[in-house]
Amino acid sequence: RRCGFPEVVYGPGKSSEALVEIFGRLRDERQAALATRVTAEQADSVCSQFSDVIYNAQGRTLRLPGSEQPSVGRVLVITAGTSDRNIAEEALETLAWMHVSAELLVDVGVAGPHRLIEHLDRLDGLDAVVVVAGMEGALPSVVGGWVDCPVIGVPTSVGYGAALGGMAALLGMLNSCASNVTVVNIDAGFKGAYIAGMIAKRRHDATSPV
Amino acid sequence: RRCGFPEVVYGPGKSSEALVEIFGRLRDERQAALATRVTAEQADSVCSQFSDVIYNAQGRTLRLPGSEQPSVGRVLVITAGTSDRNIAEEALETLAWMHVSAELLVDVGVAGPHRLIEHLDRLDGLDAVVVVAGMEGALPSVVGGWVDCPVIGVPTSVGYGAALGGMAALLGMLNSCASNVTVVNIDAGFKGAYIAGMIAKRRHDATSPV
Amino acid sequence: RRCGFPEVVYGPGKSSEALVEIFGRLRDERQAALATRVTAEQADSVCSQFSDVIYNAQGRTLRLPGSEQPSVGRVLVITAGTSDRNIAEEALETLAWMHVSAELLVDVGVAGPHRLIEHLDRLDGLDAVVVVAGMEGALPSVVGGWVDCPVIGVPTSVGYGAALGGMAALLGMLNSCASNVTVVNIDAGFKGAYIAGMIAKRRHDATSPV
Amino acid sequence: RRCGFPEVVYGPGKSSEALVEIFGRLRDERQAALATRVTAEQADSVCSQFSDVIYNAQGRTLRLPGSEQPSVGRVLVITAGTSDRNIAEEALETLAWMHVSAELLVDVGVAGPHRLIEHLDRLDGLDAVVVVAGMEGALPSVVGGWVDCPVIGVPTSVGYGAALGGMAALLGMLNSCASNVTVVNIDAGFKGAYIAGMIAKRRHDATSPV
Amino acid sequence: RRCGFPEVVYGPGKSSEALVEIFGRLRDERQAALATRVTAEQADSVCSQFSDVIYNAQGRTLRLPGSEQPSVGRVLVITAGTSDRNIAEEALETLAWMHVSAELLVDVGVAGPHRLIEHLDRLDGLDAVVVVAGMEGALPSVVGGWVDCPVIGVPTSVGYGAALGGMAALLGMLNSCASNVTVVNIDAGFKGAYIAGMIAKRRHDATSPV
Amino acid sequence: RRCGFPEVVYGPGKSSEALVEIFGRLRDERQAALATRVTAEQADSVCSQFSDVIYNAQGRTLRLPGSEQPSVGRVLVITAGTSDRNIAEEALETLAWMHVSAELLVDVGVAGPHRLIEHLDRLDGLDAVVVVAGMEGALPSVVGGWVDCPVIGVPTSVGYGAALGGMAALLGMLNSCASNVTVVNIDAGFKGAYIAGMIAKRRHDATSPV
Amino acid sequence: RRCGFPEVVYGPGKSSEALVEIFGRLRDERQAALATRVTAEQADSVCSQFSDVIYNAQGRTLRLPGSEQPSVGRVLVITAGTSDRNIAEEALETLAWMHVSAELLVDVGVAGPHRLIEHLDRLDGLDAVVVVAGMEGALPSVVGGWVDCPVIGVPTSVGYGAALGGMAALLGMLNSCASNVTVVNIDAGFKGAYIAGMIAKRRHDATSPV
Amino acid sequence: RRCGFPEVVYGPGKSSEALVEIFGRLRDERQAALATRVTAEQADSVCSQFSDVIYNAQGRTLRLPGSEQPSVGRVLVITAGTSDRNIAEEALETLAWMHVSAELLVDVGVAGPHRLIEHLDRLDGLDAVVVVAGMEGALPSVVGGWVDCPVIGVPTSVGYGAALGGMAALLGMLNSCASNVTVVNIDAGFKGAYIAGMIAKRRHDATSPV
Ligand SMILES: Nc1ncnc2c1ncn2[C@@H]1O[C@H](COP(=O)(O)O)[C@@H](O)[C@H]1O
Ligand SMILES: Nc1ncnc2c1ncn2[C@@H]1O[C@H](COP(=O)(O)O)[C@@H](O)[C@H]1O
Ligand SMILES: Nc1ncnc2c1ncn2[C@@H]1O[C@H](COP(=O)(O)O)[C@@H](O)[C@H]1O
Ligand SMILES: Nc1ncnc2c1ncn2[C@@H]1O[C@H](COP(=O)(O)O)[C@@H](O)[C@H]1O
Ligand SMILES: [Mg+2]
Ligand SMILES: [Mg+2]
Ligand SMILES: [Mg+2]
Ligand SMILES: [Mg+2]
Ligand SMILES: [Mg+2]
Ligand SMILES: [Mg+2]
Ligand SMILES: [Mg+2]
Ligand SMILES: [Mg+2]
Repeated sequence: RRCGFPEVVYGPGKSSEALVEIFGRLRDERQAALATRVTAEQADSVCSQFSDVIYNAQGRTLRLPGSEQPSVGRVLVITAGTSDRNIAEEALETLAWMHVSAELLVDVGVAGPHRLIEHLDRLDGLDAVVVVAGMEGALPSVVGGWVDCPVIGVPTSVGYGAALGGMAALLGMLNSCASNVTVVNIDAGFKGAYIAGMIAKRRHDATSPV
Repeated sequence: RRCGFPEVVYGPGKSSEALVEIFGRLRDERQAALATRVTAEQADSVCSQFSDVIYNAQGRTLRLPGSEQPSVGRVLVITAGTSDRNIAEEALETLAWMHVSAELLVDVGVAGPHRLIEHLDRLDGLDAVVVVAGMEGALPSVVGGWVDCPVIGVPTSVGYGAALGGMAALLGMLNSCASNVTVVNIDAGFKGAYIAGMIAKRRHDATSPV
Repeated sequence: RRCGFPEVVYGPGKSSEALVEIFGRLRDERQAALATRVTAEQADSVCSQFSDVIYNAQGRTLRLPGSEQPSVGRVLVITAGTSDRNIAEEALETLAWMHVSAELLVDVGVAGPHRLIEHLDRLDGLDAVVVVAGMEGALPSVVGGWVDCPVIGVPTSVGYGAALGGMAALLGMLNSCASNVTVVNIDAGFKGAYIAGMIAKRRHDATSPV
Repeated sequence: RRCGFPEVVYGPGKSSEALVEIFGRLRDERQAALATRVTAEQADSVCSQFSDVIYNAQGRTLRLPGSEQPSVGRVLVITAGTSDRNIAEEALETLAWMHVSAELLVDVGVAGPHRLIEHLDRLDGLDAVVVVAGMEGALPSVVGGWVDCPVIGVPTSVGYGAALGGMAALLGMLNSCASNVTVVNIDAGFKGAYIAGMIAKRRHDATSPV
Repeated sequence: RRCGFPEVVYGPGKSSEALVEIFGRLRDERQAALATRVTAEQADSVCSQFSDVIYNAQGRTLRLPGSEQPSVGRVLVITAGTSDRNIAEEALETLAWMHVSAELLVDVGVAGPHRLIEHLDRLDGLDAVVVVAGMEGALPSVVGGWVDCPVIGVPTSVGYGAALGGMAALLGMLNSCASNVTVVNIDAGFKGAYIAGMIAKRRHDATSPV
Repeated sequence: RRCGFPEVVYGPGKSSEALVEIFGRLRDERQAALATRVTAEQADSVCSQFSDVIYNAQGRTLRLPGSEQPSVGRVLVITAGTSDRNIAEEALETLAWMHVSAELLVDVGVAGPHRLIEHLDRLDGLDAVVVVAGMEGALPSVVGGWVDCPVIGVPTSVGYGAALGGMAALLGMLNSCASNVTVVNIDAGFKGAYIAGMIAKRRHDATSPV
Repeated sequence: RRCGFPEVVYGPGKSSEALVEIFGRLRDERQAALATRVTAEQADSVCSQFSDVIYNAQGRTLRLPGSEQPSVGRVLVITAGTSDRNIAEEALETLAWMHVSAELLVDVGVAGPHRLIEHLDRLDGLDAVVVVAGMEGALPSVVGGWVDCPVIGVPTSVGYGAALGGMAALLGMLNSCASNVTVVNIDAGFKGAYIAGMIAKRRHDATSPV
Repeated sequence: RRCGFPEVVYGPGKSSEALVEIFGRLRDERQAALATRVTAEQADSVCSQFSDVIYNAQGRTLRLPGSEQPSVGRVLVITAGTSDRNIAEEALETLAWMHVSAELLVDVGVAGPHRLIEHLDRLDGLDAVVVVAGMEGALPSVVGGWVDCPVIGVPTSVGYGAALGGMAALLGMLNSCASNVTVVNIDAGFKGAYIAGMIAKRRHDATSPV
């Protein structure tokens, strides 16, 4: 196990058999497991074998919960628009797999300023925020101005034309004038959540191996 | 005179003599005039000849006011940060030359959300807003969510690294999720103000030639 | 209702059921509604339920007209080539939904200079022009030279090779040497028309909330 | 001598002595010569030695006329704006060195449509046109629609921001919807003129070596 | 008829019916016609109606020969590799439609230097050369060094990875150190041939309208 | 004070007088202060006034230590090469200003694998790592594989040619296959350190306002 | 036969019949042959005719072994991740066809530093290394630091978002701070192996024609 | 000593004192040394101290020859144009420092095909070729077609406009259709020569540590 967390599997290019084999092995070892970017077909193969594996179709993940363990910390996942939801689901599954408490706040894009302000109370007492946003990617800056914890920006490929497949959102977040905003790759819901979860977990268990 | 507005001169590549000649001629014709991107040296030459020409060093403009004329409309120029000020000054000079009333609101970058909210009253009753912002260029989207008039985004080359000389801000503004945001070229304070001024002027004088 | 205009819905990623639900609700509230980038399947679902919803297959829009209301203003939509037509249709539907009078002038690309000149009379007395053009995106500059109102350039992804999916047209329009040209995202027919319509509507009803 | 034309020298990176040596040698051989992109210092060195070498400071060229020879053909060099003039001068010097008759038409940018139309008569009977334009680079398309001969587009690095050092103009010209437009490198006044001159010369002397 | 040549039709986005209608009309007017980038389906519709229309499946063109007319001039079309053939066919059909004599030389890529040298005799006495090449796009430079006429480079989208869909070849050709190389858009076989044909035709009939 | 930390000032575009004024005011208020990207001239002005302000010439920072306060946490700043040192110094000054304990490990670029392995003991027990690297930007991935805490990658503009001013390093870090790597803008030593410091500080004082 | 090696065929755009014909001819001439990027359909056609042709489905190659010949040299092919395997297979087939001894080491990505170190013994005594890696492309630098022979980096298109289809890996490898790293095109397994094989072969047979 | 070769120093960002110290130490240890990209000032400091250090002003290198040692192998350095000479000099100095025999062939750009063909005899019996070329970067492909050894392409930043600071040449070389061409970074004369020298040296001394 790397970094104190059970194995995470990248789905693309793996056969359904390979995935079944990996989940079977980790299950026998009573480890938790997470697979990302799985297809419906891969999910069917694994879930028809192991009834305790959870398939999140929107997030394209397979998750084997592993041993009972209380969740710690508090991470908020925020999305700018409806279409950013699948990346947010990947993030939520990652946090569940890490046993980090997570909440979701959707559709608070910067052009609807009332939306975020109505929910300012939910921005208090967090360990970290994961902000998932496509198009102009402005939301992390705005959120960054309201919170006093690290903000992990996850640009998405949502948009068209000059969105350049997520590059506009990525560049926007990298240039954020909020000092507490850091960035991961386009559509990298797993990675954004992994870092947020690591920050949360290590804060609440200063002696934990993670 | 094109579009009902007196001549505007683009400074780069013109000799000081050429500028003096142009301002002299327009002054004789009792026309207003505007020159943009002028150097201190060009400004010296023109101002030492014609005491009624106004040099705005920060905005790098020379302006000859022309005939007395009441200002109409109401355009607000907003900047995200201190360094966007020189482009905002170019915009203000352009609006003065057009006889359009203009106001300035500075330093309300998105990462300081309180700043803009404190000034929401100034966003009422406008004809158009010119938003000057570099780095992630997120401010037009935020402003666009608070006003019910056209927002002209002017991306600036302020920033470093992934700001790509203003391209990040430009792409951000083009992908704005606010429907009332439209965009001009990087550092194009003149153009952003010209369009805002044209909208204002035509609204207040539906029968004017512009 | 944001900005005084009824709701507009972005089709991609929404289920047909979700669209039926939204149109049903707005219809009950006697509001106008517009959905853009809808698929034929989404359109079928909505139109088979509500006979008063208008599907524009070329523009990929669904429109619920809302309350009777006279159209105001005058906006011209111009296309450079035949292939830019679908984006122009999105623009026209948007203007219809806003109750702004709109006209269409097609196929007046810059390489056929006689075409535009034959129609110069149609360029008089406008509130705003929406110019839809792909490939080199030169048409807004040319039109901008003939009119004295704002020109909203909508670059399209029409073209191949060095057209770079619309980036060449976008860059061309941003660098327009006509002062009255402003730009929106590639293929953003809705946004281009929304801004033109807002300018037109506010000019003809200076006291209207928009 | 390559292609039937005397030597052309690329100035950058050559010492003044090297240039003097080359011009001296070609002069002794009674050949014509052209050097492009020369500095004022290089020009001084050469001209103080050889009084018959012509320095065009704006075009940054040195030209040794060579043997008397009548000029043939008719090439028109057109510029969009004042700042494109130095590239146009490089083109004119190249045509002079080739003994091809050339004319100049300046400042007929697309946003001033009357300008070009006033000069339509000058577009008749040409062998080729060289169109020098920066910013959006739209002029070759417009010219291409009025003439029935090859149009060589020379994009220039004039502009700022999204002009991207001439890339916007280059992409615009490559995507021209006029079939008779072909393109050379940014600021390549020499090359644009060389091809135009070659077309002209070969048309008027079908048996000439060029 | 533009520029003295019969109509050319761009296939994409046109219905089969529209194409049948256009070819029918031009046929009635005894004009020649050319359609590029047609699909097999479009071709079927037209050819099943008009037996004298020629479909070139590799070049994706439909051609209606028009009135008998002798071919003039001499243009050589060269390809670097096997995969560049379809663009070369588009070029050949264009030249046939223009009644310009054309020849084809295939697979003489720069990495096989013997191939081109074996055919140097075919490079003599030409009016223009069209060089079709993908990947590094080096062939126009090499050919340009052997001929004394204009070389029209047509970059193709052949290649993978850093070929960037033809951008590498396009940039290569624009930077050609051969002075007689000029460039058109990626995969623009029609345009490359049109300009070459125009040069050839006008050279052999100095009084023709083209 | 934003986010519980004293004010930080961005030097470019501010006059020396403005900086003196800001430092004077914060000093009177007994606050700590940090200015980044200051010139030698700006530094002279401030330091000649206030002897307790520390100028780091390599890091281009001015720092006013503020009230005595014990440092907490443990952050390691690692550089790939000698030329990345100035960005590392900016990071170290930022951490000093935040009262977070910091260490420096230099010149452990990936091509000298022994270097990092010799120092593996220094990678234990950290709160966060800031990895400063230019050229291919591979170091964060390698470090990420050895530590179990967040790694903040700071790409630098060190390099030439295909380094593209830091874009190659930035893209490399964004694509890191190590799950614990997150990224900030090119040359953003301040931001990388700020986030690392925030993580460290909040971990060691779970009730602190930061 | 070019460069002393039998013919290599690029599959895309060739008909199955053409491939059968080429393999048949080379087989009659008792030459070895290699085809890359073949489809399953092309492979079926060739293999059903010639039972001695070897199809590598993962590497998308067809190989005809040719005359018996001892393998020489020692080249190691290393992959960063599972998904880089198909490009590695293309490389292995190329080396087999060249009669160069090759070994494979998989899944030693830089974020798992133990993996490579466990296999350091396999890095001794090599003629050349081919490193196949996508995403951040950091592996060649790391390998380059452990070996004293040329390292050929083959970037792959594996990854998403800011991987830009392999451009991030390509730029990373070009900027490698290891002096012995050289680079080929994205996904160019054939070319990387060809150069490594050429180095190996020429080293072990200093008088061989290759 | 890395890879069996004495130390190489990268000049930029090092003080003259630091360089004097490094050269002094290596001289005392009787090692060879090479510094690249040194300024005239750095060179003065070192050479005024150590008379046996060789300064190559064109190549911007300082070289301390080290112990007498016979040169082995045969590497040819070829340049496309005059302006590529300084990068070629850096390559030659690198080979001298490695004790590898090197030759220089200048100004054989692809547009002058006779030039290379006149020197074909010099292409025989080589261990490797280093081809230094800017602008379209076509020369490595052409050379690759004439030799049967590895060709290391070194793109240079020579050129303007669409040369994009060497990116056009880099992309061209990466897409070379010659199988024996591999590539290093733009202007990386040292790296290109280092790999060529390593290939040569290891071929001639199969038991040498390099
Ligand atoms: N969606 C994802 N994005 C980026 N990295 C991932 C993702 N899912 C899994 N990984 C990483 O991929 C690696 C597993 O790859 P593999 O061995 O191919 O399954 C692990 O190191 C994970 O951290
Ligand atoms: N800062 C500016 N940015 C863009 N266009 C400008 C600017 N200043 C003036 N112009 C335009 O430049 C033209 C004048 O150019 P010129 O004739 O060269 O002085 C006018 O059409 C103006 O609209
Ligand atoms: N401004 C220019 N742009 C591009 N090529 C040029 C230019 N001036 C001269 N040349 C070419 O550069 C070559 C001469 O280079 P050189 O031998 O370095 O003087 C000739 O082949 C010319 O065709
Ligand atoms: N996968 C590949 N990538 C790049 N070049 C290749 C590849 N496979 C074959 N080639 C080259 O393509 C040429 C053969 O092309 P063709 O004549 O179209 O089969 C030969 O010169 C090979 O060196
Ligand atoms: Mg968004
Ligand atoms: Mg900003
Ligand atoms: Mg168009
Ligand atoms: Mg222009
Ligand atoms: Mg090619
Ligand atoms: Mg580095
Ligand atoms: Mg990798
Ligand atoms: Mg070159």
